[in-house]
Amino acid sequence: MRVGVLGARGRMGIEVCKAVDAADDMELVAMIDMGDGLFAASDAGAEVIVDFTTPDVVMDNLHWCVEQGISAVVGTTGFSEQRLDRVRSWLSHKPEVGVLVAPNFGIGAVLMMQFATKAARHFESVEIIELHHPRKVDAPSGTATHTARLIAAARAEAGLGPVPDATKDEVDGARGADIDGVRVHAVRSTGLIAHQEVLFGTLGETLTIRHDSLDRASFMPGVLLGVREIRNRPGLTVGLDALL
Amino acid sequence: MRVGVLGARGRMGIEVCKAVDAADDMELVAMIDMGDGLFAASDAGAEVIVDFTTPDVVMDNLHWCVEQGISAVVGTTGFSEQRLDRVRSWLSHKPEVGVLVAPNFGIGAVLMMQFATKAARHFESVEIIELHHPRKVDAPSGTATHTARLIAAARAEAGLGPVPDATKDEVDGARGADIDGVRVHAVRSTGLIAHQEVLFGTLGETLTIRHDSLDRASFMPGVLLGVREIRNRPGLTVGLDALL
Amino acid sequence: MRVGVLGARGRMGIEVCKAVDAADDMELVAMIDMGDGLFAASDAGAEVIVDFTTPDVVMDNLHWCVEQGISAVVGTTGFSEQRLDRVRSWLSHKPEVGVLVAPNFGIGAVLMMQFATKAARHFESVEIIELHHPRKVDAPSGTATHTARLIAAARAEAGLGPVPDATKDEVDGARGADIDGVRVHAVRSTGLIAHQEVLFGTLGETLTIRHDSLDRASFMPGVLLGVREIRNRPGLTVGLDALL
Amino acid sequence: MRVGVLGARGRMGIEVCKAVDAADDMELVAMIDMGDGLFAASDAGAEVIVDFTTPDVVMDNLHWCVEQGISAVVGTTGFSEQRLDRVRSWLSHKPEVGVLVAPNFGIGAVLMMQFATKAARHFESVEIIELHHPRKVDAPSGTATHTARLIAAARAEAGLGPVPDATKDEVDGARGADIDGVRVHAVRSTGLIAHQEVLFGTLGETLTIRHDSLDRASFMPGVLLGVREIRNRPGLTVGLDALL
Repeated sequence: MRVGVLGARGRMGIEVCKAVDAADDMELVAMIDMGDGLFAASDAGAEVIVDFTTPDVVMDNLHWCVEQGISAVVGTTGFSEQRLDRVRSWLSHKPEVGVLVAPNFGIGAVLMMQFATKAARHFESVEIIELHHPRKVDAPSGTATHTARLIAAARAEAGLGPVPDATKDEVDGARGADIDGVRVHAVRSTGLIAHQEVLFGTLGETLTIRHDSLDRASFMPGVLLGVREIRNRPGLTVGLDALL
Repeated sequence: MRVGVLGARGRMGIEVCKAVDAADDMELVAMIDMGDGLFAASDAGAEVIVDFTTPDVVMDNLHWCVEQGISAVVGTTGFSEQRLDRVRSWLSHKPEVGVLVAPNFGIGAVLMMQFATKAARHFESVEIIELHHPRKVDAPSGTATHTARLIAAARAEAGLGPVPDATKDEVDGARGADIDGVRVHAVRSTGLIAHQEVLFGTLGETLTIRHDSLDRASFMPGVLLGVREIRNRPGLTVGLDALL
Repeated sequence: MRVGVLGARGRMGIEVCKAVDAADDMELVAMIDMGDGLFAASDAGAEVIVDFTTPDVVMDNLHWCVEQGISAVVGTTGFSEQRLDRVRSWLSHKPEVGVLVAPNFGIGAVLMMQFATKAARHFESVEIIELHHPRKVDAPSGTATHTARLIAAARAEAGLGPVPDATKDEVDGARGADIDGVRVHAVRSTGLIAHQEVLFGTLGETLTIRHDSLDRASFMPGVLLGVREIRNRPGLTVGLDALL
Repeated sequence: MRVGVLGARGRMGIEVCKAVDAADDMELVAMIDMGDGLFAASDAGAEVIVDFTTPDVVMDNLHWCVEQGISAVVGTTGFSEQRLDRVRSWLSHKPEVGVLVAPNFGIGAVLMMQFATKAARHFESVEIIELHHPRKVDAPSGTATHTARLIAAARAEAGLGPVPDATKDEVDGARGADIDGVRVHAVRSTGLIAHQEVLFGTLGETLTIRHDSLDRASFMPGVLLGVREIRNRPGLTVGLDALL
């Protein structure tokens, strides 16, 4: 499979080039960044384009890919519903082209959320503990908040009431943040990187799903999975979930 | 929902009676054990029968249930393919009756296996650690062996090669048991009950699924789930998985 | 070793009788409860008395033990400094008698606190996560609060400043309760019993000390340790720590 | 405190230079490697020398330090009892000089071993699980083997018999390696770095000590601790333990 990378000199782009280069079933045929022309990719016969650029240029890049009949895997941020609709309309004229737009390429994180959503309806208790390095500014993390919302929605759909909790005498903050009825605890410590644990409990048993992420290389297997799958998925795919 | 229990004085039957009795949406209408007649259940208007008896009598019990048009949830062991086929043939004449036969009613354990099977295709490394009380005779546990086989099958289907492992200098046993290419470690310690951890790893991240079971009450939510769902599932259902 | 138990029909007393009875090096010679005379213990030749009674009667019991020259292991609550001083004064006349008064006989919990106090001075970060069943009324637990205070004192003594934490944007409660500068998170879930984790972090590494307690039988090894050791420890010993 | 580094251009030496440079209470006054003269360090007024060189040159370096009255912290390997004795004899003439020779500067790892040795005598069960990246050649790790030996010795001293284990039906290797009667399990997975868990169990409770090491920066707090303490510790100190 012949792959071109847009944003090839960016932090993520460099990792993508390394990962494509190391994959047995892929060939890195074009490394394009600001100032380079896009046609270098089509000239080199790229079958799939990976785009880690910026919100400013990503729509131009995507429009060009679709016009050229090249499928695309996009990790660039800033996709509103309006933007996604525009991509869909382009793709409607090119039934053989596939585009994957994903906010998170970490397979482990995406599976954690999928499994948590699935388990949510079967356990009366659930809490989230996320653990990060102490330089992090927000608490809880975006992933933890998103996971809590997914769980809360699944519980509501299954008709579950509030999580049991007899706490009456609480030192302020001990029971964590309340995100849609799910308690979320944020731990900060030197020596940690990015970790999350979802704990489910019911009569006599608990189920724990834990994700530990050590560096941004962890996004690469997800990018490669996207590259491999997108040619068999014409149209727009949003989120890595659909491929897992 | 009116529920009858067969094997009501057995270890598991007693727990089932307590759980049905405590459920808001169920009424325990018949507690039947050796020496009691089955018609006590139909006379009491049982809509679902739970059977935790013995391999000797379970087929007679099930035949009677199907004949009476009563759905059944069965935790009794000893179901061969031949026995399952016989149940299917009885049910073919009673399209409104459902029967659930499940070897394991622990929702947590069943979800752990489902999630592990799903995750298996996305991680190059995987190992299983099971931890039990020191009175356990077999190592690894049946659940761990079964999980390893499910993972191995999923890896094969996804075309994954062997798990990476550079070990050359091993003290005998350090790397665990090899179950279809998946390493399984069995820990035994006073103070433990029944626990299992499945660790998946890929570039820069790990995903861990852990199940902790504290007592046999942990099977009851699975039994109640079966009771609630089986009337909407005519025919034979094997394994709790299908309901999760 | 000949052992008598006071409060033998209470919840804890029953467990103590069972544990003493099962110990190879001990003989249970007296089981005494309300309405029974204390002299049954001395008549039976008790060398050590275990007292799990009530604050109302424990001082009378202890006074009698010291008078009789019988060493004592006391788990009864309600010991003020004033009471401890009174016991000390009694013991000053009986140099061969030992008395152990301990608020917590869980060896695991006591070691966890000892280790946490020792590690505290060597790690710039520390947080506590305690996890309990959802019927618990207070959050955080008494043990977690006590551990946090021990850690805070050790940090102060070692001249450590505040734990690093860049959090600016916090959903209320996410960062836990602040106990003397140590963050404590309280998780509540069905399926849990009593658990605590102390996480220490420094550059590139973390150290975690975790205690899981499953039932009150977990106090018995501590009681038996007290019985074995107290005859070699004349005078008053407060807390199991001194014996570990 | 004025600090010189020998082996300053080696893998560990570079980290030491960075760490000393970043410490508020230290000044990096000399970075010396092969081909440089040692007197650059004394000329610059070094009060403590850190040596991460090679077994070939470390004895010459140490002899020079002691002669100059400069204390030393040594991470270089290859110290036999004979070599240690020679250092002791040099130091006997220089009562104000201290030398620390340590095989492991990871504070977390050293504390884990200390705590495990202490806990060993109080729990009837114990097992070790070590987890590393899959490029590791030996299983179990040196640290795990060393920990197992320390635990075994502590158990023997406390008169504990064999760990309880009813296993009769074992798939080869499931119960791990037997190191002096302690079972050790070695897990290998992509996404892991270097981790170890020691699990202790007794009636109704478990105590777990876990160490996670993410990169070699984790040795630096131990090196700095050595630098700060060695001037108050005349003579030879072997192992970081003595300082913790």
